[in-house]
Formats: sequence, structure tokens, C-alpha cells
Amino acid sequence: MTQRLRLKKNADRRLKAGHLWIYSNEVDTEATPLKVFEGGEAALVEASNGKTLGVAYVNPHSLICARVMSRDPAMRLDRSLFVHRFNQALALRKQLFDAPFYRLIHGEGDLLPGLVIDRFGDVLVVQLNTAGMQALADEIVDALEKVLSPEVIVFRNDTGGRRQEGLESQVEVVKGTLPEEVLLEENGVRFAVPVLSGQKTGWFFDHRINRAWLNGQVAGKRVLDVFSYVGGWGIQAAAHGASEVLCIDSSAKALEQVAYNAALNGLHEQVAVGEADAFEALAALKADGEQFDVIVLDPPAFIKKRKDIPNGERAYARLNREAMRLLGRDGLLLSASCSMHLAPERLVDVVRGAVRHQDRHGQVIFQGHQGPDHPVHPAIPETSYLKALGVRVFRD
Amino acid sequence: MTQRLRLKKNADRRLKAGHLWIYSNEVDTEATPLKVFEGGEAALVEASNGKTLGVAYVNPHSLICARVMSRDPAMRLDRSLFVHRFNQALALRKQLFDAPFYRLIHGEGDLLPGLVIDRFGDVLVVQLNTAGMQALADEIVDALEKVLSPEVIVFRNDTGGRRQEGLESQVEVVKGTLPEEVLLEENGVRFAVPVLSGQKTGWFFDHRINRAWLNGQVAGKRVLDVFSYVGGWGIQAAAHGASEVLCIDSSAKALEQVAYNAALNGLHEQVAVGEADAFEALAALKADGEQFDVIVLDPPAFIKKRKDIPNGERAYARLNREAMRLLGRDGLLLSASCSMHLAPERLVDVVRGAVRHQDRHGQVIFQGHQGPDHPVHPAIPETSYLKALGVRVFRD
Repeated sequence: MTQRLRLKKNADRRLKAGHLWIYSNEVDTEATPLKVFEGGEAALVEASNGKTLGVAYVNPHSLICARVMSRDPAMRLDRSLFVHRFNQALALRKQLFDAPFYRLIHGEGDLLPGLVIDRFGDVLVVQLNTAGMQALADEIVDALEKVLSPEVIVFRNDTGGRRQEGLESQVEVVKGTLPEEVLLEENGVRFAVPVLSGQKTGWFFDHRINRAWLNGQVAGKRVLDVFSYVGGWGIQAAAHGASEVLCIDSSAKALEQVAYNAALNGLHEQVAVGEADAFEALAALKADGEQFDVIVLDPPAFIKKRKDIPNGERAYARLNREAMRLLGRDGLLLSASCSMHLAPERLVDVVRGAVRHQDRHGQVIFQGHQGPDHPVHPAIPETSYLKALGVRVFRD
Repeated sequence: MTQRLRLKKNADRRLKAGHLWIYSNEVDTEATPLKVFEGGEAALVEASNGKTLGVAYVNPHSLICARVMSRDPAMRLDRSLFVHRFNQALALRKQLFDAPFYRLIHGEGDLLPGLVIDRFGDVLVVQLNTAGMQALADEIVDALEKVLSPEVIVFRNDTGGRRQEGLESQVEVVKGTLPEEVLLEENGVRFAVPVLSGQKTGWFFDHRINRAWLNGQVAGKRVLDVFSYVGGWGIQAAAHGASEVLCIDSSAKALEQVAYNAALNGLHEQVAVGEADAFEALAALKADGEQFDVIVLDPPAFIKKRKDIPNGERAYARLNREAMRLLGRDGLLLSASCSMHLAPERLVDVVRGAVRHQDRHGQVIFQGHQGPDHPVHPAIPETSYLKALGVRVFRD
């Protein structure tokens, strides 16, 4: 029989509002000690008055010690639950997209806490980010088999989140054989992505709509793509008429992929690459008197935890300030942040500071967020993390 | 010689950060009494140490007693300043849009505090929202003449803002003759708009990109458009394949225009109208057992001033809750707010509450804002006001 996990008084409020997380200090550990649970074990969550609130999985070693999988206490954490949720998620993506390239499961946003699945056609890349999802790995693979019967399933279980859950890092192909190239198409442009060795699952689907917006602004422009990774922004800009694109990244491997992807779209003449630390590259370009019409700043998360906020905000401010010095007379800055802890209005302030620092004027003409295959759970602010501002910068 | 307006110590901080407003309690009225200024008169703004910060116009009777027009103290508030700013604004719109239907000037966002101009081809509709802009009316008309030589210029000087500035309400055609029909095209759909008698300038260009997003989600769907006004959302939905659209508004005149605009696009069979208070209409539709696949809620600002926040939030919550009851099994809610005082995350919470109230699940798959012809000034949070959430609502 499933064990019970009892909350302290009033600790059920967040759940009742729709949130799915339980923190370890919210559990009535006298009534239901956490230590009796194994990592990933299922539990029936009950309020302090004994009312059952739903079924969750537990990790006694994590600050978020339980995540609710269903409000229906009769629901079992088995293949059929995953089949149901995968079908629900798939219906949304089919409504949204013509081609099978998208985030299929966005964790809590798809009511599957701790699970991420990106789809590259017949290749699915799975991240099991919690002990609960790790414990359900077989059910997840079975359910994917039933719903999509993909040719290849890859586990990219090397995320930072897993360390916090006390899980091993592990990357493996659990079904099929990975083809030589894993391809996707986004906004009409093709990319080969390194699903085994690249960042995260190999690709960032979350910026799709922001890139689509920028694509409309770059015809005839000289574009700088900082933190380019495999060229998501830069190559799409070239494909949409940018006269010249320079992709900067600190990873030689990522830049090889940029060159490959540029050639894949017949754009090798328009796209150049530079291997360098972003800040050093910006300084060197300034020293060389270079100017760009459009600059894309899509850095990794500078703020990973709440305590990093002051340092992280300073890093965003410095980055935007340095980039602003390279922007031509009537220029466009695309400034992004994937730090959940950076509030949208703080990113506006970062841009404001950079514009003022140059004694220029700015107009925020685009406020972008994560794409629709990364649904935000309205009760879980943590599921909304991506910001992209389009800022016209000019001298008066 | 231009009079000087001296700020109190530290009252220059907001301006130095890029803001353009001066509040009456920030002025050193011993050094420079406000009462010597006439409404709309120009002034050189100086910090407490005497350093000149720029040129502003003053209204001694308004809480925002001055608005900066330029940081260059040598700049005169004359036709050539407006010509320069209009050209700057026009360059952005020409880059953004293929057709001449847009907000040409968005007040502070285009560095012209208190001035709004919407463009409907050869017809310009102008709102002078401050005494300063009223005093410069002739210069504005002259500059528009020079930059665009429009056939018609209309003053829609009947805004709420003018009352606060102590200005009369006045609607007049100041150049040319208004044609029988003023037409615009948005997202491929045509509309005739009542520029003299309609809401604001006759049309809301600010939702253009949000409507464009919704247009991609409505094929084959039954759509309810609440607070439809002249049909901006509903008729575009019909044009993009909605099987059936019901537009609800409390104004018979607006609904006549809906019918007219539907016919203009050959969509009179798909678009029905209902004249009613929104809340009464939602209750009646519920009583009749009606259901919709897509519901658009684009109400007028329920929160006009900070003190209205609690009541306004309750009104948004009630509206979203009532609408949610009419949403079919796998439905889409487009919930908008044009209240600057409603923070984006509060609108998410409104939606969250409505979803929970029905014991359903929600996924925010779209977070929209005002379009790019309504630029946000990065130092002036007040210039960012529009929110539109696209929420998929389903039962688990």
C-alpha cells in the first residue's frame, strides 16, 4: 500500500492554488517521517486534517521533497498515466507545429514534474531530472513506445538538477541507434544538433518565436551573435537576409557545428565564427572599430540560484553595456536571459542602464518569452524563465 | 528667455536614469515657483546644483508638473524638433510594417510625452494629452504636414488625461475632409473604423501581434469575443478559419460596426453579435448551455489608478472565472488587460484562480504585450501596459 505524506497545518495552501511542489520543511515529519521513503517512491499527500490531496513522488534527500503527479489519489504512477499525459502534450504540439521538432514534455508545465523530452523527428531526447522520474524510467520508455514508437530514445541524464537529487550523471542511447546526423528545422532553417554532447538536449527550442521575430528584422543587416552555440540565432538571421553574421562562442566544437549548419543551408559565405570568451570578444571587436546593426545576446544563465542575483545582475549589466558599444547608429539589440531568478522588469532595467551608459535612447519594441512548447504552469512561477527583449537603440 | 525649473536635491535621479517625468513635489518651489508658469510653457530643467538637465514643458496644475522633451538644453520646442522625432518614429514603422496602418507616435515611448498619433493611411488621428502638447498644436500640425502631408488630420482631444491637465474636451477635423469610410488592414483583414466617435482614436493597434498569434489557433473553432468593440479579434478569427464567432459588446453602435466589418470581409455568415453587459452575457450563455473552443477577454482598463487595484483585480478575476465556465473540454482562453497597474504576474494569477475554480488545468502558451508601434521606454515602466495571455485549459 502507498505510504502517506502528511503536511503541516496551512502547508497545503500552495498545492490548493495549483502548485505541485512540497518543501521538506512543510512535511509533518512526526506523523510521516521522510526518512522512511526511498528516493523516488510514491506517496499519498494529505493535509494536516487528513484530507488526501493527491499522489506525489518523494525524494527525502531533496529540498523539494515531493512533487505532485496527480490530484486524483486513485491515480497510479504507471505507464498509463504517462501515456495519458504524453497524448495530452502531443495534442498541443500537433496543434501548434507542422513539423515534429519541439519540446514534447516541459516538466511541471505539462504536469510531469522533473521530466523533459525534446523531439527531433524520430529521435527523442529525455532528461530525468528527479529521483521520482528516474524511478519511473521504464514506464516512461514504455509509454513513449506506445504513443510515438520513436526510432531512437536518448537519455541525457547529465543535468545539474540530478546532482541536487543525488542522482548519477549518465548519457546513453536506450533505444535504437543514433543516426549520424540528428536534424531539425526551425523557422524554415535546418540544423544538425549534437544530442549526445551538446548543451542540454542539444538544442534550445525555447527561443523559436523570439528568433522568428528577429528574423523579420535583419534583412541587409550586419549581425553579431554572442554565445552563438550551434548558430540558432545567427544562421537563421543569415537565412533571412542578414548581409553578414559573426557567431562568437567559447567552444570550438560548437563553432564547428555553426560552420557545418551554415553550409547545410548554403550560407557559409555569410556566416563567420570567432572562438573567444564573450567579454574578451566584445572588447577586441571594439578595439578593432567594428560595428553591427543587430546584436544578439543569449548568454547561459548567469543566475542559477537566488543568492546569485546581485552578481548575476551585474554580469548581465556588463554584457549589455559592452555589446551596446558595438551597436551602430540605428541599431537593434536582442537581449535574452534564461535565468528564472531575473525578473522581466530587471532585464528591462539592464538594457536601460546600457542605453543610458552610452547616452543613447532605447525603445523596447519586442518582449518575448519561451515558446508554446514550453508551457508555463500558472501556479508555478518557476516554470516561466525565458525573456528576450528587442530594443531599438538610437541617438537623438 | 526660457524660464528655469529647479529640482530638489536627489530629485534628478529618475531623470538621470532616463525617465522623462517630474512630479510637483520634486521641484524646489522656493527657487523656482511653479505658479509663474503658464500651462504648457517651456522650461529649462536644472538639478539642485544648477546643472541643466534638459528642456521640458510645464503644467503647474498637474501632479506630473513637467515632462522632458529633450536632454539637449539648446533644443527648442518647435516644428523642427517634431519633424525630427516624427521622422525617427516613421523610420521604425516603415521598417516594421508594409502598410501605413499603425501607431505613429506613442508618447513617451517615442520621446514625445503626451502625444499620441494613430495613422490610418492618409488619415492621422492625434491626441494631445497634456497642456504642453496642446500649446504646441500648431507646430505638431505643421510638422506632420512636412513629414507626411496627410490628407486628413483629426484631433481626438477627448481623453481622460486631458481632464487631469485642466484641458477642454474637443474633437475636430483640423485638416481636410474625413472620407465616408476610414479603412485599415490588420493581419490581412480589413476594418472600417469610427475615428470621430469610437473608443480612443477609433482602433486599438496595440493588440496586432496578439491577434496575429490567436489567428493561428482558431481554425475550425467556435469563438466568443467579449468586449468586442468593432470586431478586431472576432472578425480576424473568422477570417482565419473560425467556424463561428459571437461578438459581445454593450454598445449597439460598436456592434453595427462589427456587422459592417464582417460583411466587408465576406464573413457576415460566420460572425454574430450580441448587445449586452459582458457579465450578464456570460451568465446568460452559461444558462443556455453554450460552450466555446476559444474565448477572448479584452476588457477596458478595470484599474485606472493605483487605488483601484484591489477592486480591479477582483473584477478581472470574476470575468475570467465566469468566462472559464463557458470554455469547452480542450479550450483556449485569451485573457488580456490594458491596465498598466495590473502586473503581468498578477494576470497569470487571475487566470490561475479561474482555472482552479473549475478544477481544471491551465498551460500558459502565449505571453503577449503591446505591438512594436507602441514602444516601451525602458526607463518609464508606465509605458508598458498591455498584457495578453494565451491559456490552454483542459481537464486531466
